[in-house]
Amino acid sequence: MAHTIQDIAQALGAECFGATDLVVTGAAQPSDAGPDDLALAMSPAYAPGLAKGQARAAVLWPGADWQALGLKAAIIAPRARLAMARLTQMLDTPHAIDDGIHPTAIIGQGADIGAGVAIGPFCVIGAGARIGAGTRIASHVTINPGVVLGADCLILDGVRLLRRVRLGDRVMLHPGVVLGGDGFSFVTTETSNVERARSTLGAADMVVPTDATQHRIHSLGGVVIGDDVEIGSNTTVDAGTIRATMIGRGTKIDNLCHIGHNVIIGQDCLLAGQSAVAGSAVLGDRVVMGGKSGVADNITIGDDCVLTGASVNLSNVPAGRVMMGYPATKIDVQVSAYKAFRRLPRILRDLGPRQKSVSKQDESD
Amino acid sequence: MAHTIQDIAQALGAECFGATDLVVTGAAQPSDAGPDDLALAMSPAYAPGLAKGQARAAVLWPGADWQALGLKAAIIAPRARLAMARLTQMLDTPHAIDDGIHPTAIIGQGADIGAGVAIGPFCVIGAGARIGAGTRIASHVTINPGVVLGADCLILDGVRLLRRVRLGDRVMLHPGVVLGGDGFSFVTTETSNVERARSTLGAADMVVPTDATQHRIHSLGGVVIGDDVEIGSNTTVDAGTIRATMIGRGTKIDNLCHIGHNVIIGQDCLLAGQSAVAGSAVLGDRVVMGGKSGVADNITIGDDCVLTGASVNLSNVPAGRVMMGYPATKIDVQVSAYKAFRRLPRILRDLGPRQKSVSKQDESD
Amino acid sequence: MAHTIQDIAQALGAECFGATDLVVTGAAQPSDAGPDDLALAMSPAYAPGLAKGQARAAVLWPGADWQALGLKAAIIAPRARLAMARLTQMLDTPHAIDDGIHPTAIIGQGADIGAGVAIGPFCVIGAGARIGAGTRIASHVTINPGVVLGADCLILDGVRLLRRVRLGDRVMLHPGVVLGGDGFSFVTTETSNVERARSTLGAADMVVPTDATQHRIHSLGGVVIGDDVEIGSNTTVDAGTIRATMIGRGTKIDNLCHIGHNVIIGQDCLLAGQSAVAGSAVLGDRVVMGGKSGVADNITIGDDCVLTGASVNLSNVPAGRVMMGYPATKIDVQVSAYKAFRRLPRILRDLGPRQKSVSKQDESD
Repeated sequence: MAHTIQDIAQALGAECFGATDLVVTGAAQPSDAGPDDLALAMSPAYAPGLAKGQARAAVLWPGADWQALGLKAAIIAPRARLAMARLTQMLDTPHAIDDGIHPTAIIGQGADIGAGVAIGPFCVIGAGARIGAGTRIASHVTINPGVVLGADCLILDGVRLLRRVRLGDRVMLHPGVVLGGDGFSFVTTETSNVERARSTLGAADMVVPTDATQHRIHSLGGVVIGDDVEIGSNTTVDAGTIRATMIGRGTKIDNLCHIGHNVIIGQDCLLAGQSAVAGSAVLGDRVVMGGKSGVADNITIGDDCVLTGASVNLSNVPAGRVMMGYPATKIDVQVSAYKAFRRLPRILRDLGPRQKSVSKQDESD
Repeated sequence: MAHTIQDIAQALGAECFGATDLVVTGAAQPSDAGPDDLALAMSPAYAPGLAKGQARAAVLWPGADWQALGLKAAIIAPRARLAMARLTQMLDTPHAIDDGIHPTAIIGQGADIGAGVAIGPFCVIGAGARIGAGTRIASHVTINPGVVLGADCLILDGVRLLRRVRLGDRVMLHPGVVLGGDGFSFVTTETSNVERARSTLGAADMVVPTDATQHRIHSLGGVVIGDDVEIGSNTTVDAGTIRATMIGRGTKIDNLCHIGHNVIIGQDCLLAGQSAVAGSAVLGDRVVMGGKSGVADNITIGDDCVLTGASVNLSNVPAGRVMMGYPATKIDVQVSAYKAFRRLPRILRDLGPRQKSVSKQDESD
Repeated sequence: MAHTIQDIAQALGAECFGATDLVVTGAAQPSDAGPDDLALAMSPAYAPGLAKGQARAAVLWPGADWQALGLKAAIIAPRARLAMARLTQMLDTPHAIDDGIHPTAIIGQGADIGAGVAIGPFCVIGAGARIGAGTRIASHVTINPGVVLGADCLILDGVRLLRRVRLGDRVMLHPGVVLGGDGFSFVTTETSNVERARSTLGAADMVVPTDATQHRIHSLGGVVIGDDVEIGSNTTVDAGTIRATMIGRGTKIDNLCHIGHNVIIGQDCLLAGQSAVAGSAVLGDRVVMGGKSGVADNITIGDDCVLTGASVNLSNVPAGRVMMGYPATKIDVQVSAYKAFRRLPRILRDLGPRQKSVSKQDESD
């Protein structure tokens, strides 16, 4: 992890200044930096921190005066987060998974293990599974019979790949990911209260069924994950019913997300923590879901939509929309309605006693 | 998985037509179907797909003209999803868990293992645990001492059954399920800010306590799961404090749900992905919780309620209600109020300058 | 678990009455209690239950007439939940983790295992990890090389401690907890639609990028967990980018919560089930987050705030506030606005036909 300022600048595609042969051995926040750290001060807000820390070199915002900041060397990064991506990639070390197959791992009959594959302790690889060259699997992973992994995947501890799961190349799965669990799909013999509520928007009376048994629709379709997909800790992706649930190339999914059965997610999407997509919904390419946001079942979200954090999307969204609220609408509709919402009590008071006379009745709704 | 059209129709309790001795070996979406697949075209929307695919036989909607669709044989299903349940059950294969007890499994002293039980690699079965006949346990499962499982359960990889958990018969637990973790239950020596906020609805000032230590209320009550319950991947059910947390017979819970301590859930309920029930709440029978919906602690939800997706239920709900919103109300109240909400900005504008004069002040609330 | 009433009262710091040398062997709800159980009847609502059960002794509410309730002995607890904490601590038994290091556990080179440490079956302890004296680790736990655990921790089954994780003393981690996963942090070469949406609040048109590749910002900072922290089942805490993600001393986190990268959480906080804190947010001390509540990225929540269940906190919150709603506001603002919200349809009707003429247009927004 020792690099000269010049090497780092080159890797970042950025300009460097001063003693560019200075060697740094790590990165740090400006105020925490030691003399061998590269301080990360990509906005003027970090300037005071530089004075507190001991860094001799820093990555600075465009226009920063590195000499006035008391530095010996500097890198100027025009796009701070992109520089951060390249820099952290340089400084990171690989996950500690020993080469080869650990003696405690159990490899099923006919499993096809590619060149350079690493498999950690207590893994269980099912019969006939195929693991592409260079894939690294940490500890306690379960891979069911017949499952297919591409090349250069990174599968961390305790991941479960159930039946009929297929991963592309360079897929990264964090600990506790479960792919290919059965879809949540049940049906009663008679018309159920949910069906009744949906078709009448809640107007019909709920009835007590004579037979409430939930019959299980089995999941035969598996899961297909594209190349360069990353999935966060403890996230689950359920198997499709007849065809596969699909996650497109380059899509990144955060921790504790839930992707229902039959869902199709496009390419290069970002799904932040605890977001969820219900059964049979379809997301286009480059869709961004904020943390805790949700997409209802059987709807379609167009390309390049941004579903903001905690938004509850209950109907189709055309391409390119920014959505907010519950139920979600275009963000501008929501923001102006919300401002009005907060003024409501005052307005109602101003509207006078005519309104007050009905309020008691409303409370009992 | 090879069946004649006639056999399938009989299993589905449906009528069949044409070359009913035709053999199919799988099921597929109409447009993906090969010549040996049974196409699933249970609504007229699938008709164009049938022309694209190669299926010779299909399950069709009531009233479909199978000959005009170019098929050799057809099954007409009056209730499509119910047919899907029976058909997928026919076509599915069991989870790959080898018979017997895997040599790497650790079986505690005095564990009572029923006839035909299968226990997979790297499982840990605690002393005195009881596992009913025919139950199948996949890999890496931990079953604590004294835990009881009924007959014919299916326990998938990495499930954790902690102390004082009891499962009925035919319970299915997906990977990563944790039953019997300690309830989230703490108390401070003095009255806490949460207690203050609750009792005054936020009107009281929050104070800095002299001793903020959170004392732990231990969970002694365990978890009791009824027959035919199914629980999805990475879902958690916490132990009760004094008596057990209980999930009633036939209830199905999806992935990443959280069931708090002391909760009682009735029979034949459906809880969709990421839904949650907070401590000591009670759900009746046949309650349906949509994805991401929540039930607050210590409240009661009556039989046959439908809590729609993302609804936040903060107070008791009488039987048979369909609820929506945050806080949740009857769906019709919510829908009409919501329509008005979106018209608000226009209305306020029409009400004129009297309102504008106060808006600045509101913004600072 | 056999104690006299007098011993229990003393441990609870409570007064006792009657046959205080009576021995009880467990605790139970009043109506379920057998003759050797201590009934827990800390409010008058439990009085009828006492009559149904067989308890001879009970913990009662202040002012209760124990003799009139037919008891032989009683403990009067001024603060019921605090008594419950002490009582359940007395009656609980430790988790069943055998002393010593299980022969199937794999201990990496140079791992420093303290005195009295217990390590269960199928655990993997990385090279150079340090485990403090008295710490107990259940089954299937993965501890990466170099990770540090303090003394007297309790690490339950299937926990994953990834690179650069440091735990204080007496930390309790429930099954399936993942600490130190990579932060969800990506950047595109060009300005992305999310950046565009954020800077214009959704007013700018979303564009199709020429290069949608998401470049990964690696997480080098690890996770630091303070003393006496407890984390619930399947909760995840991601690693910081440059410095550690930090959870302060005494904070308790429930099941299925998500703590993003770079987050700083203060001391003695409570985070209930499925709550989440997005990247780089800062929580003060003694903050309480209700179930399903969320904190957006890069904001600050002051000391002693209460973020009620399901509240979506999108901007900084000063110390001592009680917040509710989406977006969250002070609870009183929310409650009064919400009451008005429910009266809206009636009000709009009363405002007459002028409003009706525009409603159709609104529907198409």
